[in-house]
Amino acid sequence: MLPEKDCSKAMRSIKDALEAVEGKWKLLILYALCSGPKRFRELSREVTGITDKTLSKELKVLQENKLIKREVNDSFSQTIEYSMTEHGMSLRNVLFELWNWGLAHRKEVIGR
Amino acid sequence: MLPEKDCSKAMRSIKDALEAVEGKWKLLILYALCSGPKRFRELSREVTGITDKTLSKELKVLQENKLIKREVNDSFSQTIEYSMTEHGMSLRNVLFELWNWGLAHRKEVIGR
Repeated sequence: MLPEKDCSKAMRSIKDALEAVEGKWKLLILYALCSGPKRFRELSREVTGITDKTLSKELKVLQENKLIKREVNDSFSQTIEYSMTEHGMSLRNVLFELWNWGLAHRKEVIGR
Repeated sequence: MLPEKDCSKAMRSIKDALEAVEGKWKLLILYALCSGPKRFRELSREVTGITDKTLSKELKVLQENKLIKREVNDSFSQTIEYSMTEHGMSLRNVLFELWNWGLAHRKEVIGR
């Protein structure tokens, strides 16, 4: 399945991917945005345990990596919403496999 | 694809998975072990940029999480080899999706 012949290139790709989503928060934020655009407060509620400072920082990095976009609603209240870009959406398979494997890991190691 | 109804359980699974492989090294070490058992020196050569101290620490955590095993060869030279457990092998799909996405990310964002 993985290209054993061209090991160093595959390593570089995995490294690229890990650098874009490194840390424990980015994928959780992206997962929260899977179900649709959200405001800062909604995200901070949904991603349990994250502080406002960290959420704010992570949202910036995700924007730099073109994984999410920040849009100001042109209404009276000028709400700001975050949503996934098409490039961010392409991470769904990674999230799905992590979710799948996390279930198996809890059974195998965490044991409940 | 992802279970939107049971959001918090899915979040927990993704969190579990991320905690087991957190940091930028663990998945790279596991990837290096995909092609078969390896000695410490082989791993430190293959995982470009890792220091011996970090490799040693990461190998211990991977063992605690039952992702790899450490075996002493009962020969005269008593070589020590690291290899993937069955549970570690089950991460292959995650690695495959990361590799795949890393390729797309390089094209989209890093741009070469």
